[in-house]
Amino acid sequence: MPRARLPVDQRRARLLDLGVELFGQRAFDQVSTDDIALAGGVSKGLLYHYFANKRGYYVATVRELVERLMVATELAEGVSFDMAIRGSLRSFVGFVRDNATFYRSLMRGGVDDEIQRILDEARRTLMRRVLDRAGIGEVAPIQRVAIFGWSGFTEAACLHWLDHEADMPEDELVEMMLGALLLLVAHAAPRRSASN
Amino acid sequence: MPRARLPVDQRRARLLDLGVELFGQRAFDQVSTDDIALAGGVSKGLLYHYFANKRGYYVATVRELVERLMVATELAEGVSFDMAIRGSLRSFVGFVRDNATFYRSLMRGGVDDEIQRILDEARRTLMRRVLDRAGIGEVAPIQRVAIFGWSGFTEAACLHWLDHEADMPEDELVEMMLGALLLLVAHAAPRRSASN
Repeated sequence: MPRARLPVDQRRARLLDLGVELFGQRAFDQVSTDDIALAGGVSKGLLYHYFANKRGYYVATVRELVERLMVATELAEGVSFDMAIRGSLRSFVGFVRDNATFYRSLMRGGVDDEIQRILDEARRTLMRRVLDRAGIGEVAPIQRVAIFGWSGFTEAACLHWLDHEADMPEDELVEMMLGALLLLVAHAAPRRSASN
Repeated sequence: MPRARLPVDQRRARLLDLGVELFGQRAFDQVSTDDIALAGGVSKGLLYHYFANKRGYYVATVRELVERLMVATELAEGVSFDMAIRGSLRSFVGFVRDNATFYRSLMRGGVDDEIQRILDEARRTLMRRVLDRAGIGEVAPIQRVAIFGWSGFTEAACLHWLDHEADMPEDELVEMMLGALLLLVAHAAPRRSASN
């Protein structure tokens, strides 16, 4: 374990942990570099050394959060499509709940083009996974539109759940999102063939 | 017709027409107040008189666009739920196509809290209309989440269609969005009663 040899990477990683926590509690504008340096136990100089500026730190933190989401929602192998998606959606909903403030700010805060590109790339990766796993073979345009529409469905459903229906059990939300996907995939598919 | 008596309102209305056109072609940062004044045939002073600054003009233009969307997508009376939603969705898709640049910038550009509130208010109004018309009676939490999720579905589906599947006929997109709504409403409903 080359632990002792990576103090720089570790310090950077710890600062990213901290960023996920800080921006998960407060909006970008409400976190100062003084706050970050103090909470991280580092000088502002070191913070700037790693991340150039507060903005750079924020972007790196968003990438870290997205990376965690990607890992958390990976589709299990060796189980049915339904089971794999259900497990992934459970992780997704738990992730949204645990990072509610950060999630809200990314989904409807003042997100600029750079952050938007990071999010869109993540959406594409997530939906590509679903499409690959669905085993649809050649995907019709309407199915792609349906799947990408569904990603918007999951985001809007989670936001509405967070803000207005927090009493609804997570499993109920998960089952609804899974049901919606299965219905959409099935609904979009038969239009391309008469044999179903 | 009190036309001659409303030169101020008319000039303001014409400037809003112009704003919808300008911001429909170029992003906020790429439109200068000089451009606006020149295209509108007014002085910058008059522009500032009506809208305080470029930002105020932009916000008023977003409100104008949202108002037009609201009018365009009103649900027809005296027809079935399906027919009413279909007509509304056709108008919605046409509106998105006609205002593609503006729509894209609002849906994933650098939208701040004020604009986001305008958009969220519009979403709530649109979804409230759908819920009222669905005649579900008392709406279960899961149905509200499903309907608001569906609004995210329509937005993400339209964006994906604009960017990647523009060859897909508008009617196919409309039928898919309508089908998704009917499926979601039906899917979310029976969980609350055994009699369906």
